[in-house]
This record gives sequence, structure tokens and C-alpha cells, in this order.
Amino acid sequence: MASPTCSADQLAQLFGANTTDAAGAASFICDQFTAVSDRFTDTAYAVDSTYLLFSAYLVFAMQLGFAMLCAGSVRAKNTMNIMLTNVLDAAAGGLFYYVFGFAFAFGSPSNGFIGRHNFALHKMPSALFDYSYFLYQWAFAIAAAGITSGSIAERTQFVAYLIYSSFLTGFVYPVVSHWFWSPDGWASAGNTGNLLFGSGVIDFAGSGVVHMVGGFAGLYGALIEGPRIGRFDHSGRAVALRGHSASLVVLGTFLLWFGWYGFNPGSFAKILSPYTSGNFYGQWSAVGRTAVTTTLAGCSAALTTLFVKRIFSGHWNVTDVCNGLLGGFAAITAGCSVVEPWAAVICGFVAALVLIGCNILAEKVKFDDPLEAAQLHGGCGAWGATMGPLFFVLHKLNLLRISAEDEMAGMDLTRHGGFAYVYHDDDEPNKNGIQMRKIEPSSQS
Amino acid sequence: MASPTCSADQLAQLFGANTTDAAGAASFICDQFTAVSDRFTDTAYAVDSTYLLFSAYLVFAMQLGFAMLCAGSVRAKNTMNIMLTNVLDAAAGGLFYYVFGFAFAFGSPSNGFIGRHNFALHKMPSALFDYSYFLYQWAFAIAAAGITSGSIAERTQFVAYLIYSSFLTGFVYPVVSHWFWSPDGWASAGNTGNLLFGSGVIDFAGSGVVHMVGGFAGLYGALIEGPRIGRFDHSGRAVALRGHSASLVVLGTFLLWFGWYGFNPGSFAKILSPYTSGNFYGQWSAVGRTAVTTTLAGCSAALTTLFVKRIFSGHWNVTDVCNGLLGGFAAITAGCSVVEPWAAVICGFVAALVLIGCNILAEKVKFDDPLEAAQLHGGCGAWGATMGPLFFVLHKLNLLRISAEDEMAGMDLTRHGGFAYVYHDDDEPNKNGIQMRKIEPSSQS
Amino acid sequence: MASPTCSADQLAQLFGANTTDAAGAASFICDQFTAVSDRFTDTAYAVDSTYLLFSAYLVFAMQLGFAMLCAGSVRAKNTMNIMLTNVLDAAAGGLFYYVFGFAFAFGSPSNGFIGRHNFALHKMPSALFDYSYFLYQWAFAIAAAGITSGSIAERTQFVAYLIYSSFLTGFVYPVVSHWFWSPDGWASAGNTGNLLFGSGVIDFAGSGVVHMVGGFAGLYGALIEGPRIGRFDHSGRAVALRGHSASLVVLGTFLLWFGWYGFNPGSFAKILSPYTSGNFYGQWSAVGRTAVTTTLAGCSAALTTLFVKRIFSGHWNVTDVCNGLLGGFAAITAGCSVVEPWAAVICGFVAALVLIGCNILAEKVKFDDPLEAAQLHGGCGAWGATMGPLFFVLHKLNLLRISAEDEMAGMDLTRHGGFAYVYHDDDEPNKNGIQMRKIEPSSQS
Repeated sequence: MASPTCSADQLAQLFGANTTDAAGAASFICDQFTAVSDRFTDTAYAVDSTYLLFSAYLVFAMQLGFAMLCAGSVRAKNTMNIMLTNVLDAAAGGLFYYVFGFAFAFGSPSNGFIGRHNFALHKMPSALFDYSYFLYQWAFAIAAAGITSGSIAERTQFVAYLIYSSFLTGFVYPVVSHWFWSPDGWASAGNTGNLLFGSGVIDFAGSGVVHMVGGFAGLYGALIEGPRIGRFDHSGRAVALRGHSASLVVLGTFLLWFGWYGFNPGSFAKILSPYTSGNFYGQWSAVGRTAVTTTLAGCSAALTTLFVKRIFSGHWNVTDVCNGLLGGFAAITAGCSVVEPWAAVICGFVAALVLIGCNILAEKVKFDDPLEAAQLHGGCGAWGATMGPLFFVLHKLNLLRISAEDEMAGMDLTRHGGFAYVYHDDDEPNKNGIQMRKIEPSSQS
Repeated sequence: MASPTCSADQLAQLFGANTTDAAGAASFICDQFTAVSDRFTDTAYAVDSTYLLFSAYLVFAMQLGFAMLCAGSVRAKNTMNIMLTNVLDAAAGGLFYYVFGFAFAFGSPSNGFIGRHNFALHKMPSALFDYSYFLYQWAFAIAAAGITSGSIAERTQFVAYLIYSSFLTGFVYPVVSHWFWSPDGWASAGNTGNLLFGSGVIDFAGSGVVHMVGGFAGLYGALIEGPRIGRFDHSGRAVALRGHSASLVVLGTFLLWFGWYGFNPGSFAKILSPYTSGNFYGQWSAVGRTAVTTTLAGCSAALTTLFVKRIFSGHWNVTDVCNGLLGGFAAITAGCSVVEPWAAVICGFVAALVLIGCNILAEKVKFDDPLEAAQLHGGCGAWGATMGPLFFVLHKLNLLRISAEDEMAGMDLTRHGGFAYVYHDDDEPNKNGIQMRKIEPSSQS
Repeated sequence: MASPTCSADQLAQLFGANTTDAAGAASFICDQFTAVSDRFTDTAYAVDSTYLLFSAYLVFAMQLGFAMLCAGSVRAKNTMNIMLTNVLDAAAGGLFYYVFGFAFAFGSPSNGFIGRHNFALHKMPSALFDYSYFLYQWAFAIAAAGITSGSIAERTQFVAYLIYSSFLTGFVYPVVSHWFWSPDGWASAGNTGNLLFGSGVIDFAGSGVVHMVGGFAGLYGALIEGPRIGRFDHSGRAVALRGHSASLVVLGTFLLWFGWYGFNPGSFAKILSPYTSGNFYGQWSAVGRTAVTTTLAGCSAALTTLFVKRIFSGHWNVTDVCNGLLGGFAAITAGCSVVEPWAAVICGFVAALVLIGCNILAEKVKFDDPLEAAQLHGGCGAWGATMGPLFFVLHKLNLLRISAEDEMAGMDLTRHGGFAYVYHDDDEPNKNGIQMRKIEPSSQS
């Protein structure tokens, strides 16, 4: 970020001996610029904190979305139980992520496998992390737990769930997020000596870290527990056990959509970062574009699901559309910050097909997930994270249109950056050692 | 906005020949100020984007409000159907507004009737529009569709609705918003050669554009389809077909209230615009005042409805109060940015009476709108937009108290400005060619 | 806040006679800095207004939370009634707080007991209060009324409630908030000649003012009305009258949690206030820490309630956990801005025990509050406000570790500051005469 840098020595030489006190004049002026520069620093902290905190509140609202989605998707007799698990995901998750989780995930310096500082917010805030960053990460951690709660709904003992949920939020999720998001993580693009041959995986807003951890945890849980009683009849045919309230499903889906605007665009962590100072195109544009790509992926997945399901089942189904929509969101979460809007539409389209395929497969193998959560977050999340090479190629082709100068200027300084696979020799690393490409605006007019 | 403008030539002459390198000193200092100025530009983009994005998220939350309001207002058997239409308003609307809608509405340069650039966000972002602006306008477009869904509830074929909704969001609404909100629009105050004798209509946050388009589309739809079966008995007397859940109605109403804080105060699009730099009174005050006038119009309409309905029907009815509240919001939406708080109270009071009148009329002519949406948004929206001349006169009288100097300083630089009818010779046009008056603070102390 | 202060006279002397027009050069440069300084002022207004307005919207969302919590906690037959009271709390409260309430609470100058200026927003905005501040305070006022509505649910005449609610929002609550939050208030720490021997009570976000007013009003109301019919049987044993929908209870609880992020962190009113300009640690950190302490207090109270109730009653109960969670929030509200995260965990733990104790006591004395609102907000609020001396001592011990210099630099300039009890001779008063300590970051690295 260009900043006013005033050198008193240099200025004093320009004034020369004929000014009564050239050194004094120069240092007087430069002191003013230092004060100005400091106030810009303050302003950036306040603006970025406002943006990050309100994003965190939106991500927290997803917990309410999960609770309502779960409540509506289970049979009435299990509503109290599943909602209790959702409340406790947030509550137990809050304490465990505070005491252990954040330290395992981001405590620095650390080895590549697990963090070991900042337990219980010790030595926080620091120049690296403010409280708002902790709150944002906590909201992510409980979202991973929320995803799983759906998969093992209607048949899990409460105490087992409580232990599992605390362990996921306090240990499993933090460790996986350390691998990918901490600059020290073994799979992080920020770690130049990492185990992936010097390249690294970047998962922008967590298709892999949040959705795949949550989805696969749910997958294993549901596999181990087996299907709900009555889900498959004696001859092995699937019997639909419909949820008791479509209103709650729609309420939950819209709340998750609302909260995803904190999840994806909020993942930049900062908004006051110009690419070239004084220009209309900066990180604020990337944040806005991320909100747009997120929206479009969900919309396209919803419509795809609507029509494909209509062809297969013969009726228009709101619950299926809601699940398709959420699958589109889960898929776009990895690449949301760098894909063009048209690519988001394609991403959502494929995500809907992936989800439908996973659901057919699940029925075949007698896998029972009352909310399709493993299929949705695991399947679509995996599609989102593995679609990386595809988009990387498309992206490369796009980049050929713009000048190398623009590309260099486009270095993004966000904390946990952007594209699915990045190779280190492409660009200069930024100060956090993580790279993210920006997509140039098509027109500077 | 006053900005540091430093002329190196001018400064070099002031230093004169006795400074060793006067030109160098001057240009050194001025370069610093250029950097400072650029960083203020960056800051404004970041602050305004944060404000606009979070406002867009709130407007999106209205879609959830419509879904819950609709779900609660219909009979249980139609809940799934109407909620599917609400989800698809957002999803289909997202794709159509992305591909066509935004281009028809804001694509520039254009003729007065329809835009023809920026299809599928081509050549975006530009100096004119960032992604956040697109997202905000998309949320408005789906709100117009959401309004209509209520009017034709419980009797519309799903495929017909899907076609209608896509057409409304992708074509009708964008074209109407082009007429009023695009600087090129034939009815826009920004178009000095417009067809309204050089004056123009300004509809700040969309009493006309959003609520009347949505409301009248619903009116025609409900008229063409005819009333629900059983709504009027053989002798032609009205039979109340009550919605199945007052809880969902209240949930939906409060969510719409919550979202309206994005709809009305968010319509300024920018918040970091001082009227006089360094003063406590700026566009941020106007944004806050808009939130206050919105609140008061709704409150006053709710209380009016409560008591008037009590007199007519003999009981206190929460559903009626909710509809009255929303009618107050719909009415204030046009003038919310310029009316004084006391005028907002009156506006809400009259809106409640207009809504009650429209409902009596609707029963007389056997018009059946399950959510009173046509009456509410069409009737109250029209009252809001036509009340303009009244407020204009009141406003003029107010302005007599302040000095001409203050008035000139009060030019507001928002994109799509403020007052219902503005005449061009009153004030200097701002750079976008759209004018908005500010109301002066009563005290500068 | 350090700001660029440029003295033209001083600079002219430094340039001396040899510069052609030293006075001109100096004043030229200094004018630039004045413009810079003004733009920082503008920026701070815009950033702080954005932060305060969106916080106000969140606090408003609590009203929806109360409505859903109340609806779910009463028997189905009373749902319409209680939701109407919730809508009218907001609507009638809006008008009464606009006409009278704000003036009684903050109208300045005033005596120590009641304000008497700014009725109906007369002479607003001023340098003291902008519209956003009014909106924020209005949202607080209706929250107090919302608390009470739960206590007297299922047995109160509607007209009586309407009168009571208007009186609470328009008079009682404003007068009490004047005592504590107005600089002129008799119990305010800002009033050096106050009646509490020169010390004063500071209630940061309203454990006392909002929760105790709301809770005690509910207590008296429920006492006077007596228990619901059937709540205690002939032999005087308590009979549980369970609410009709746990889904609505959970929905309401999560919405209140969501809204509390506006209530507590929003109470700073400003976010762009550095403690030392140019440093990462500023008021934005305190805002973030408040969000964290709020979260942890609720989490800890929820888990405590879960296990204690399990021991006593033998089952895991989601409704109890929700009430415990809210009790934790009510308790932390007074001290949220100054306690360390670990202390928030303890605060929540004790709050859960206090709530359980109050509930046992209530059953003993045949006090019936359908939502436990008096116990929750009154009991936990009182615990939050009286725990002050305890935290004060702990806080003092903490402070011994940091230097006096840091402490002096740490003066917080927020409007209605922080700690439960503050003695005036500790530090310099800030310009509003209210003091708040900051907790220093543990590490400056």
C-alpha cells in the first residue's frame, strides 16, 4: 500500500543552507506526515475490524441456519435432540476452540503439523491476530461441527455427540486448518519447504478445510452407526423418511445463504487493501466479486437440481432445491475468490449433478444421511477443491490477456489467500508468504 | 469533498531561488500529498463497499422475510408450493439479473428506454460500477418478484410462475428501473432532456420502482387469475381464508423490517461523503436519518392499523398489524431520505388508512390477494410516490429558515438521489447529474 | 487521537527570510494538512456510523428473537397474543421513544434526574448525537420492554400491556438510563458531583439499565398478577406448563445471541479510536474482545446449565440450556468490555448457578414467570452488575503488571464507558468525563 514516506534528511538537503533552519523545517513537515501515516494505519484497523466482525456475526448466523435445517429435516420426534446438538456445537465449541483449538490452528511459531501457542488467547491480541480474527475462526470451527450433526441425526447418543463435537472443534478441525491455512502448515502454499514438492494447496474459504472435514466426519459417523431404522425395508429398498417441516428447511437454507456472505467474502479478512493506491479496483472489488460468485453458484445449482429432479422424480421439490443450492455454495467455497462469475455458474451446475450422483450412490450402498450433509459438503466440497486445476487452466488463459505489469501490481496481501493450486515461481511472495492472484477488471474506464 | 491539492509550481515560487532546490523540495512535498490523497480514495472505496455489501446482505434477508410471511399467510396445504416460488425468485432471479437484468437497467451508455451494455457483467467492474453495486441491485430485483409471489399465491401453476418471475427480474423490473434510476432514463431527473418537461421523477429507494412494479404485477396477476376457490361464497360475501401460522407471519414481518434497513438507508450507496469536510453533519447523518424515518413510518402505520381495525372488527389482530407495518415501510420508501421524522410519522399514519381502504375496495370488487401484497405495495407505494408534491411544499417551507449558502453546500453526491420531484434550476447539478437536497441539522452546536 | 497539527507561524520562522515568501509557503503547506485533518474527521464519522448503524440493526434483531422465544415458550393458545405484544413493543416503543424517551434519557443540558431537551428529535443531529445514536438507543429501549413481555405472558390484558409497554419505553427506562448513562445523571461516573460520594456506577452495555429494568419490571408484574391458572396445583406443587414449540425457542435464542453482538460490542458507539496512533491495539481490539467475552460467558453458562440440570432432573433439556445461555449473556453485559476472556467464562458459570437458584426460589414462593425472564435478566443482570467489585479487584491486580505510562495511554474515549465501579482519582477524565480502563494486550510483538 503506497504510504506517505517523508525523509527529513532528504528534504533538508533540498532546502539547503539558506533556509534558517532547514533541518528543523524538514523534520517539522515530516513529523506531520508520520502522524498522517499513523492515522491511516488506525483507519485500516478500524475498517478491517468492522468488516471482519460483522462477517463473523454472519458466519455465526449459519449455526442458526444449521439448527433450523436440521430441525426441519428430521422427524418431529427428534427435533429437540438435534437442536440441542446444534446449540451445544456452538457452546462447547466456543470453550474448546478458545482453550485449545485456536492455538492448535494458528499458534505461531509452530511445526507443520500442529500449533502450540496462544492457548486460551494467551498473548493475544498481537500484531498477528486480533480478537476479531479469533471470533471469525471460531465461527468457522463450529460450522464444521454443524455440518456433521446432520449426518448422524436421529440415532446418535447425546453424550457421544457431545464428546465427538468437542473433539472435532477443539482438535480435528484446528489441526487440519493448521495444515492448510497456517503459514507453517505442511500443505500450505505459504510454506516453501512443504511436502507437496514446493507447491501448496490453498483453500480460500474452506471447501476443503471446513466442508470436507465436516462432510467426511459425517460420512464416517453415518457409516459406523448404520442407517436409521426403517430407512431401508426388508428387501433393501430405500424408504423416504421425510422431515417434518419444509418451512424450517427453507428458513434454515436462507439463513445459511445469508451467513455464507460472511463465510466467503469475509474470508479475505481485510477489505482496505488497494492493489494500486488511488484506483477504483482493489480488494473491496474482490470481496464484492466473491459475494457475486457465491450467489451465482448457488442459484445455478438450485435451478439444475430443480429440473434434473423433476425429470427423474416427476415433481418439483423445495427440499431438494434447498439441498442443491447449499451444494452449490459448498462447491464454490474453495475458488470463490478467484473465479469469474460465469465460471461460478458452471461450478454450481456441476455441483448439483455431483450431489445428485452422490445421493444415488448413497442409496445404492445403503448409506443413510438424513440431511444429505456428507454428500453435500463432502461431495460438493471435494468437487470445489479438485476443480482447482480446471480453473487454474482457464484462469491462466484469461491472464494472457493482461500485461505482466498489471499482474505484478495485482499481488494480494490477504492473510489466507486464494487459488486452489499455486506455484511459487509465478510471482513474488507477499509478506505472509501466501499468494493470491487477482482477476483484473475488464475495463479501466 | 475537500482534498489535499498541492501545486508543486506554486510552492516552488514561494520557496524562491534561495532554497537550494526549490522545485525539488516542492515536488517532494507534493508527492507526499498525492500519496495521501490516493489513500483517502482507497479508504472511501473500502468503507463504502463495506457499507453497501452489508446493506445488500440485509436486503437479501428480505427474501427470507417474504418466504416466511408467505408461508404463514397461506393455508398449510400450499406452504411447500409458495416457499419453492420464493427460493426460485432468488435463484432464477440471480441468473437472469446477471445475464440480462443489470445490463438492461444500468448498462451505459444507453438510450432512454433500455440499457444495452454489461451483459453477464461484461467489462465489470468499471469506474462506474463495482461488484457490490451489482449485488445490491440484484437483491432489489428479487424483492420485486417476492412481492408479487404473495398476490398470486395458492392458485398459480408452478411453471407459469417460474416464467413470470424470470421475466419480471430479467426484463420488466430492469427496464422500469432504467427509466427512473439510470442517468439516461427518460423519466430520470438526471436526464435534462427528458420527456417530463425537463423535470424528472426521483424515487429514492424504490416506492415506485420496486414496490409499484411488484405490487401492480401482483394486481394484474391476481385479477387475471381470479380469486381463490371459496374466497367469496355463492352470495358473493367474502370468506376469510386465514393463513396457517401467525408465528411465521410475525417472523417474516420482523425479517422484512430488519432487511428494510438495508433497503432504505442502503440506497445512498455511499456513506463516506461529507457535505462540508470536517463537519459532524454528512451523508452518514442522512443514512442514519433514513433509518429513523423508515422505523417511524412503520411504527405509526402499525399503531394506526391496530386501533382502526379494533374499531371496525372488535378484536386486536397481529396479522393486520404486521400488514399495516409493512404498508408504512412501503410508503416511506420513496421519500425516506429527505423527509423529517415527524413527516414520516404522518406518512405511516396515512399509509395505514390507504391500506385499509384498498382492502375494503378489494373485497367490494371481489379481488383476492392472499397477502394483501398488491394493496400493500401497490397502494402504499403509490401513496409514497405521490405524496411527493406535498412533502416538497413542506420541505420548501422548511428550507426558508436556512441560508442560501448552507443550501448550496448541502449538495448530495449520492448516485441515485433523493426527492420525489426536483426542478433543475434550483441548485447546481452534481457530477452524476442527479440532485438531492439535504435537510439541514437544526443546530450546529 | 494524534492528528496532523501544522503551525504556519512556526514553519515560517523555520524557513526564514531567505525563502521568497516564507509565510506563504508555510501557510500553503499547512492548509494542505488542515484539509487532510478534516478528511480524517469525515472518515471517522463514516466508519463509526457504519459500525453503530449495523450494530443497531443487530440489536433490533433481538426483538425478533424475543418474539420467537416468547412464542415458543407459551402454550399454543397464547401465541398470537404474545407476538402482538412483541410487535407493539417495537412499534409503540418507536413512537414514544422518539417523542419523549430519548429526550428524558439524553437531552442535554439537564439535571441529574431527567433530561428535558431534544423531544421528537428537536435540534438533532448535533455535535453530540447523530441519528444513528438515537436508533441504537431506541433498539435498547425496546429490548427492555421485550424482556418484560415474557414475564407476564399468558395472563395479561392486552390494553394494560400496551399502556405498560409505552410507559416503560417512553418514561421508566429513559429515566433510569439518564441516571447511569447521561453525563449529568446522579449515579453516573461522568458526574463528579454525584450522589455516590464522587464515585459512580458505570454499566457498560446495560446489565443494570436494560436487563435489570426489564427484569424487575417483569418481576413486579408477575408478582402482582399472580401465577398462571394451573401453574401450582391444589397442594401447591408446581406443574410444568411447557411451551408449545422448542424449535421457536431455539430460533429465538440464536437470534438473541446474534443480536447480542450488536448489544455488547456495539455499545462502544465508536470503533475508530486508537489508544496510541499507529499501533495494532486500539478500540477495535476492545470491540472484538467484547464480542469474545460475550460469546464465552454464554457458552460457559449453557454448558453449566446442561450438566447441573442433568444431575437434578435426569434429562438433557434444550430449553433449559437456551435459558442458561441467555442468562450468561445478561450477566456479562455489564462487564463485557473490560473483563478478560477467562473471567467471562467464570462469569457465565456463576450466572448459570444464579439462574438455577432463582428458579428454585421462584417455585418455592410460587412466583410464575413463563419465560424465566425476571430470574434470567433480573437475577443474572444483578449478578453481572454486582460482580463489579470482584472484577475490579482482579483487574487491579492485572494492572499492576503494566507500566503507568501504558495505563495513561490507555484512556478510552468511548461515550458510555466501561467498568462497574470507577474511582475518579485513578486516571485523568476524558473529554466526556467518563472513564474506561482498557486491558493491555499481553504482547506487543
